[in-house]
Amino acid sequence: MIEDILKYSDEIKDRIGEKRFLHTLRVKDTAIELAKIYSVDEDKAAVAGLLHDCAKIRDVNLLKEEAQENGLKVEGDFEKAPQIIHSYLGSLFAEKLYNVHDEDILNAIKYHTTGRENMSSLEKIIFLADSIEPMRNFDGVIKLRELSYKDLDEAMYFSLNSTIKMLAEKNIYIVPETLYARNFYREMVN
Amino acid sequence: MIEDILKYSDEIKDRIGEKRFLHTLRVKDTAIELAKIYSVDEDKAAVAGLLHDCAKIRDVNLLKEEAQENGLKVEGDFEKAPQIIHSYLGSLFAEKLYNVHDEDILNAIKYHTTGRENMSSLEKIIFLADSIEPMRNFDGVIKLRELSYKDLDEAMYFSLNSTIKMLAEKNIYIVPETLYARNFYREMVN
Repeated sequence: MIEDILKYSDEIKDRIGEKRFLHTLRVKDTAIELAKIYSVDEDKAAVAGLLHDCAKIRDVNLLKEEAQENGLKVEGDFEKAPQIIHSYLGSLFAEKLYNVHDEDILNAIKYHTTGRENMSSLEKIIFLADSIEPMRNFDGVIKLRELSYKDLDEAMYFSLNSTIKMLAEKNIYIVPETLYARNFYREMVN
Repeated sequence: MIEDILKYSDEIKDRIGEKRFLHTLRVKDTAIELAKIYSVDEDKAAVAGLLHDCAKIRDVNLLKEEAQENGLKVEGDFEKAPQIIHSYLGSLFAEKLYNVHDEDILNAIKYHTTGRENMSSLEKIIFLADSIEPMRNFDGVIKLRELSYKDLDEAMYFSLNSTIKMLAEKNIYIVPETLYARNFYREMVN
């Protein structure tokens, strides 16, 4: 399946830019590594990794236009946290433009920014691969890498909780979905 | 009205202990001070301040029993964050035992732990007085006192955001209501 998607590489690169496209290649590779460890379908992990940012249009106005055109109303959380639009739009693009109909892959793309309660292994793998691919560099990335290769739920909790701390410190809007997920994985690992 | 409530002082002291009762007297006085500044009914502020912890039974099992007997099911957030039970139960006690029927006072008691979106001035005053009464001592209390006497919404945001940071740092369950309120007051002050 990944071969069917790779043929769209130029189209995706044109939409999101080369730098972002190189990131998606690294996320694909990291997702495959994690899939091996956790016995998840490697091909699905590769496709979801490659496509997770396929709608990450850099121009926010253009992104919002595309969202509206594809039936995503830019209101509520999409208005307050525009950085989540590309995940929902990416899931739609994956289906409409790249013929992906696997629900698990589509959800992994859709929830890779906010997270959600009760994620599938593939969803967790894409969420985490996005954060730990080799070029990522932030406070805590070493611990998150370590946890990601050891226990997906512990890694999810660490990542979501760190995100909430960071957003509070920076006075940024916090999407409720991310808090629900944080509370959910807190209970999972306790 | 406050005179009608003060006659229940011994009953309340017996239920919550002397130390906690002395705290409620300080919250009452701080609430009156804030009420003066923000042109809120001082008598209502006194009553809400005096009664805000009237159900803070120290024995958690007894507290849960009382909650159940008063129709509050100990599940969901009450189970995950038992520290909020006394606020809801206190609101019921205020009405049933102390004949308070003013909705604003009852809500000020009910939401003094979690906060909520779109609080009345009285609700904000009780929420803040609880945190800044003279014996309170925690990181940030000086800034919170300053803000409380300057701008209720800024104080609410500072308090709610600090709480979320602290709960994330300590890996404690975060009640969604508190996040909704934090996001709401973030928008108010931006």
